[in-house]
Amino acid sequence: MRPSPFGSSKVPVAVLGATGAVGQAFVRLLAVHPWFELAEVAASERSAGRSYAEATRWIGDDEIPPRVAQLTVLPCDPRSVRSPIVFSALDSGVAGEAEAAFAKAGRAVLSNAKNYRMEPDVPLVIAEVNPDHLDVLEAQRKNRDWPGAIVTNGNCAAIAAVLPLAPLQQRFGIRNVFVATMQAVSGAGYPGVASLDILGNVIPFIRDEEPKVEAEVRKFLGHRDGDRITDASLGISAHTNRVPVEHGHMVLMSVQLQKKADLAEVIQTLSQWRGAEEACGLPSSPDRPLVLADAVDRPQPRRDVDAGRGMTVTVGRVREDPLFDVKLVALGHNIIRGAAGASVLNAELMAATGRIELP
Amino acid sequence: MRPSPFGSSKVPVAVLGATGAVGQAFVRLLAVHPWFELAEVAASERSAGRSYAEATRWIGDDEIPPRVAQLTVLPCDPRSVRSPIVFSALDSGVAGEAEAAFAKAGRAVLSNAKNYRMEPDVPLVIAEVNPDHLDVLEAQRKNRDWPGAIVTNGNCAAIAAVLPLAPLQQRFGIRNVFVATMQAVSGAGYPGVASLDILGNVIPFIRDEEPKVEAEVRKFLGHRDGDRITDASLGISAHTNRVPVEHGHMVLMSVQLQKKADLAEVIQTLSQWRGAEEACGLPSSPDRPLVLADAVDRPQPRRDVDAGRGMTVTVGRVREDPLFDVKLVALGHNIIRGAAGASVLNAELMAATGRIELP
Amino acid sequence: MRPSPFGSSKVPVAVLGATGAVGQAFVRLLAVHPWFELAEVAASERSAGRSYAEATRWIGDDEIPPRVAQLTVLPCDPRSVRSPIVFSALDSGVAGEAEAAFAKAGRAVLSNAKNYRMEPDVPLVIAEVNPDHLDVLEAQRKNRDWPGAIVTNGNCAAIAAVLPLAPLQQRFGIRNVFVATMQAVSGAGYPGVASLDILGNVIPFIRDEEPKVEAEVRKFLGHRDGDRITDASLGISAHTNRVPVEHGHMVLMSVQLQKKADLAEVIQTLSQWRGAEEACGLPSSPDRPLVLADAVDRPQPRRDVDAGRGMTVTVGRVREDPLFDVKLVALGHNIIRGAAGASVLNAELMAATGRIELP
Amino acid sequence: MRPSPFGSSKVPVAVLGATGAVGQAFVRLLAVHPWFELAEVAASERSAGRSYAEATRWIGDDEIPPRVAQLTVLPCDPRSVRSPIVFSALDSGVAGEAEAAFAKAGRAVLSNAKNYRMEPDVPLVIAEVNPDHLDVLEAQRKNRDWPGAIVTNGNCAAIAAVLPLAPLQQRFGIRNVFVATMQAVSGAGYPGVASLDILGNVIPFIRDEEPKVEAEVRKFLGHRDGDRITDASLGISAHTNRVPVEHGHMVLMSVQLQKKADLAEVIQTLSQWRGAEEACGLPSSPDRPLVLADAVDRPQPRRDVDAGRGMTVTVGRVREDPLFDVKLVALGHNIIRGAAGASVLNAELMAATGRIELP
Repeated sequence: MRPSPFGSSKVPVAVLGATGAVGQAFVRLLAVHPWFELAEVAASERSAGRSYAEATRWIGDDEIPPRVAQLTVLPCDPRSVRSPIVFSALDSGVAGEAEAAFAKAGRAVLSNAKNYRMEPDVPLVIAEVNPDHLDVLEAQRKNRDWPGAIVTNGNCAAIAAVLPLAPLQQRFGIRNVFVATMQAVSGAGYPGVASLDILGNVIPFIRDEEPKVEAEVRKFLGHRDGDRITDASLGISAHTNRVPVEHGHMVLMSVQLQKKADLAEVIQTLSQWRGAEEACGLPSSPDRPLVLADAVDRPQPRRDVDAGRGMTVTVGRVREDPLFDVKLVALGHNIIRGAAGASVLNAELMAATGRIELP
Repeated sequence: MRPSPFGSSKVPVAVLGATGAVGQAFVRLLAVHPWFELAEVAASERSAGRSYAEATRWIGDDEIPPRVAQLTVLPCDPRSVRSPIVFSALDSGVAGEAEAAFAKAGRAVLSNAKNYRMEPDVPLVIAEVNPDHLDVLEAQRKNRDWPGAIVTNGNCAAIAAVLPLAPLQQRFGIRNVFVATMQAVSGAGYPGVASLDILGNVIPFIRDEEPKVEAEVRKFLGHRDGDRITDASLGISAHTNRVPVEHGHMVLMSVQLQKKADLAEVIQTLSQWRGAEEACGLPSSPDRPLVLADAVDRPQPRRDVDAGRGMTVTVGRVREDPLFDVKLVALGHNIIRGAAGASVLNAELMAATGRIELP
Repeated sequence: MRPSPFGSSKVPVAVLGATGAVGQAFVRLLAVHPWFELAEVAASERSAGRSYAEATRWIGDDEIPPRVAQLTVLPCDPRSVRSPIVFSALDSGVAGEAEAAFAKAGRAVLSNAKNYRMEPDVPLVIAEVNPDHLDVLEAQRKNRDWPGAIVTNGNCAAIAAVLPLAPLQQRFGIRNVFVATMQAVSGAGYPGVASLDILGNVIPFIRDEEPKVEAEVRKFLGHRDGDRITDASLGISAHTNRVPVEHGHMVLMSVQLQKKADLAEVIQTLSQWRGAEEACGLPSSPDRPLVLADAVDRPQPRRDVDAGRGMTVTVGRVREDPLFDVKLVALGHNIIRGAAGASVLNAELMAATGRIELP
Repeated sequence: MRPSPFGSSKVPVAVLGATGAVGQAFVRLLAVHPWFELAEVAASERSAGRSYAEATRWIGDDEIPPRVAQLTVLPCDPRSVRSPIVFSALDSGVAGEAEAAFAKAGRAVLSNAKNYRMEPDVPLVIAEVNPDHLDVLEAQRKNRDWPGAIVTNGNCAAIAAVLPLAPLQQRFGIRNVFVATMQAVSGAGYPGVASLDILGNVIPFIRDEEPKVEAEVRKFLGHRDGDRITDASLGISAHTNRVPVEHGHMVLMSVQLQKKADLAEVIQTLSQWRGAEEACGLPSSPDRPLVLADAVDRPQPRRDVDAGRGMTVTVGRVREDPLFDVKLVALGHNIIRGAAGASVLNAELMAATGRIELP
C-alpha cells in the first residue's frame, strides 16, 4: 500500500449525515483508516448535541467504534465542522445547500448524494474507471468560486454496472446496453423498506432510480471535454427492482459493442482489467476491482457481496447475447463499493494525486 | 360460461406425475372442474399402488380433495390409465416415452413437460394467444401415426412473457425483445430450491431456462405454415433468475416494435386485449387474460399472483424505453397460468373446438 | 347465521384510525358486513379532509372497497363521527382520550387499543370465551358516567394463547402456563418492522409485549366478581419474539392443569370445544373457533393463518409435557382474530345480546 | 494460546462425512489449524475416489481450501483412513458402525453424530462445561475393548442451551427449565429444508429434536459416577422450531434454580463465567464462551451468530421469570459451536490433557 501523502500524521475528516445507513458505513471505514482520522460527525438538528452513540440506531453486526461513539454530533455547517475533508451521506433534501456551503468554505467534499452528480463541472468518479474526470475540478472552482470542491460517487446500482462496462468501453466501445437490477433493501437506507412490503416479494419500482442509472452510466463512461464532462454516447435502458436481500445489488446486462469481439476476448478483457493505475494500492483499493466468478450460478448477493471487503465487483455468466454481443451478471456491495467505500476511495485518490490541500 | 361440449356427464381425466408440485396443482383444479372428472392419478413406480394421500407430500395450504386422496396411484402406462384425456406433469426424464405411449393409445395428452414443445408438429399453445396452432394436430397424427395427440403448454416464464407480447405482436409486430426474469421457488418443484441457497439471496442461473424462454416465445408468437409451426422471426435475449418468492414469476421486458407506436397506443392495446375469441368463456378462462395494474409499483408477486384465480397476467409500469420502444413488467402465476392451469385451459379449448373425440 | 337484531336496515358504524394496518382490516371486514354499514372513517388530523383512498397506503392484495375509498376522512371526534357503533384502531397515544370521548357521547366503542384493557370495569372479551364479562358494562356506565361503553379485544398474541387455554381452564383449571411466541411482522403495523432488521433474522424482543400477554391471559380467563373482573389466579410467563413472517402469530405453550388429565382427555376437550353458545352463528363467528391440525408439523403461519377466514385458531402438536402436563402450538391470525375480527365479533355479540341501543 | 502438545509437527486428522454441511465446517476449521493437519477426507462410497472439489457442493461464501480441494475422497473405513484423530460428521444411519470401527482400530473419534451420545460410557462434552466427563473414557475402553475412543459433542440446540445453564447449575443448581428454540435452516444440513416450506414461514416441528435436547441437557449437566455419567436430575421441557434464518439457533429459557438468587447474582454469574480452566487458551476456545448482550433486543441470529468466530454463545434479556426464577435468550452458531467447532475444541482438550496417544 502506498504511504500516506500526508506523512505520518492523519488528516482529520468529518462525516455529514453520520447517523444513517450510509453514514454508519463511512464511520466504520474511517474509524480504522490509515490516512484519515474520523474527527467529527454531523447530522440533522434533531441529533446535534447528543453523543453519536445516543443519536444513532446502529444497524451493523459490530459495535460502534468506541472512540466515535463518544463524539458529540455536530450540526452540518462548516462553522461547526472544521475538518478539511468532509464525507457527505446527507439526504438529497439537504445535501444541495450543505455541500455547497462546505465547498465554499474551502473543504473537499466527497458526496454520496445525487444533487451535484450530473453537473458538467462536478466529477462523478469511480477511482479505477475515470480518475481523469477530477481534472474538471479546476473549472468547478472557477465557475463556482469555491475554494473547496465537490466530488461525487454515483448511484449504487450505476457503480456496479459501470465497473464491468468500463474495460469493455475502453477496449471495444459500447454502443448499447440493457440493464436490469435486483437491489438489496439496504440501498433504501434505514428504516427504508418495510418488511411487510418485501418479505417473500419483489417490488419492480424504485423511485427515480432508472433515469439515475441511465444518466450516470453515460457520465461515468464519458470523457473530459475542456471544462466539462461529456457523456458517452451509448444507448442505455434500465429496469430497477427491489428484492428481499440484505446487501448487494445484482445487475444483469446485455451489451452491444462498437467493435465486434468474440466471447473469449470479452472474458479476457474483463479478467485482466485492473483499473486505472493511479487507483492501485490506495488504502481502500481492493486487490482487484473486478473478479470473474468460476461457478455458473454466481455471483450471488449472500455469497459474494463481501468480496474485496465489499470493494470488488463480482462478475459472472459472461456469455453470448442472442440480440446484442454479450450478456453478464455483476454484483456490487451497495453500501461499500456503491456508496461509502466509493467516496473514501475517491478521497484517497484525490489525496494521492495532490488534489487536496490542507490549510 | 359455456356449456360442456360433453353434455351433462363429465369426461374422465387422468393426471400423470400427480404427486409433484405441478401434479398437485392439476389435482386441485380438476377436482372441482365442471366438464372433467378426475378419475385417475398416476405417478412413478415408487408411488404406484399406494393411495394418493399416502404417496403425496401435499404442499398447499388446503387439504387434498377427499375423493382424490383415496384414489390408488396407478403406473404411468396407458394400459393402467384408461381416461381419454390425460394431463402430464411428468419430469422430462420420463415424459418423452410415456406421453408418446398415451398418444399412440389414442389419448389426448395435455403436457406440461418440455420434451415435445419445440417439435414443429406439436402445438405449443396459450389458449388466448395461438389457438390456431392446434390445427397442426392433423399433421401430427399423420406424421406420427398417433390416433391421439400431444398438446403442450410452455415454460412458466415464457407464458408470462408471451401474454403481454401477443397483443403487441398482433397489432404492431415485434422486432426484438429483452427479457429478464425474477422467478419464484415453486417453479423448481418440490423440494426444489434448498432454503440455504435462496434465503436472503438471488441466484442468477436456472439450468436450461434461458434457451427455453427464447425459443418458446418465438414459437408461441409464430404461425402455422402448412403442416408445421414456424417461429416468429423476432430477436430475443433472456436473463433468468431465482428469487426468494413463493409463487409468481416476474418478467421485465424491453420491446422493439416493427411498426412504430406511441405509448398511449401500446397501453390501449394491452388494456383492451381479450385474447382469441374461442378461448373466452371456458371454465378456466379468467375474466381477462391481461390486466394493467394502476399503481406505479405493481405488479408484485405476493400481492398480484392470484389475480384471476392465478390465470390473469398482471402488467405494470408500461413506459417508453430509451433503447427500444416500450418497457414493462409482467407477473404470472407459474404453477397456474404457467403450468397446470394452462394445460387445463388448453384441454377445454380442444374440447370446445371439437378436437377431442371420446371413445 | 342469525338474523340481524337490527332488522332489515344496517346500522351505521365508524372506524377510528382507519388508515393504519388494523384500521384497514376493519374496513375490509365492515365493507361487506350483513348487519353494519361502514358509514364513516376517521383518522389523525393529518388525514382528515382527504378521501380515504388518498389518505391511505393500502397494504393488502385486494383493492380498497370502492364505496369506502370515496369517504372523506373525519377527525376522531364524536362531534364529527356520528355512528352509534365505533371501532377503534387508534394508537395508544391517542386512544385513551378519544375513546372516552366517544363513550361519553353515548357510543359503543369496540377498541383494539391497549389503554382500557386492564381496567376492572372494562370488559376484555373474546366472544367465544368470556361473553359474560360484558355484564360489567353496567358498572362501567355507573362508575364513569358514560352513556356509551368501551369494550376491548386483547393483544394479538394473548388472543391466540387464550383460545386453546379456555377449554382447558373450563374443564380442568389451569395452574401455570409457559408461553413463547413467534409473531408476524404485521403485528407491528405499517411500516412497522424495517426489512433490514428482520430479513433472515429473529428479534427476541417486542416492547411491552410480555407483560401484556401475561396480564391479559389472566383477565380473559378470569371471572366477573360483582362490579369488576377478577383475574384468573394462574401463573404465567411469556417470551415474545418477532419472526420474518407476514401474518400469523405462533404461540408455544406448556400448561399445568389443576385437575390432572390424560392426553386423550385434553385432546378431546380441545377438539370438541365450540365456545360460548351466544357467540355461535354470528356473522364473524368461524365454524369452529379452534381446529386441531392433523399433521405433525402444523400449524404453520403461511399454511394455516387463513383458517376460518382468519377467525379460527389452529392448534397442533398436543403432547405430554415432561415438566407440566401438556404442551401444544397455537396459531392465530394477528390482524383478524387478534385485532379487527375480534372487535367486529364483539360488536355482533353485543348487538345479539341486546347490549347496543340505537338512538 | 497454548503451545501444541504435539510439539512442532502437526498431527494428521481426517474428516468422515466431509462433503456435507457439517463436514464442510470441519474442513474449514481444520484447514488452518495450528495443531492438526487435515490429511484425509472420507465420505460415502458414491463420493470415494473423486477429488474433494468434485465430490462436494460447497455451500459457503468462501472457496474450498485449495489443498483440501485436491484430496481424494476416501471410503469411511479405518483401513483407508489412517489418521489417528478422526472427526465424524456422518449421518446417524452409518455413524454407529463406522465410528465403532475407528475406535476399535485405535483412533480417537470426535463425533457429531447422535448415535453414541447417550451411552453412559461415552462422554458428551462441551469443553468449557464438563471436561471431567472425559474421565469415563477409561471405562469405555474397558467395556468395549476399544484401543481408541469415541467422544461426542451434542445436538446444536442443546449446546446453545447448556452454555448459559452451566454456570447457573454450578452456582445455584437448576431444578427445572423450559426451553423453546428457533433454529436456523443450516441445522438440517444441505439441501435440508426446502425453500417452499420455510420462506415466510415457521415450522413448529423438528423430528426427534425435543427428546434429544431434553436428554442431552441433563447429561451435559450431569456428573461422572464411577464408570458412567449420571444425568443431572433437573426437569426439562423443550419446544423446538424451524425459522427462516440461515445460521444460528435461538434458545429461550425459563429457569428454576435450586438455591434462590436475585437477578443481579444471576447476571453476575453469567457475565463472569469463563468455563473450565482446562478449556481456556485452546486454539478453538473463544475469548469468552458466554457474552451478555447489552441491547435489549439482542442476541439476534444475523447480528450475533459469528461472535467469537462462532464459538461464543451470546445471551440476552436476562430478566425475572414470573413463574420460575429467571428467563433469558441464548444464541449459538449451530454449525460452529453446535457442531464442527465443538468437536475440534474437544479434540484440542483431549490432546492438551494427554488423552490422545499417537502411534
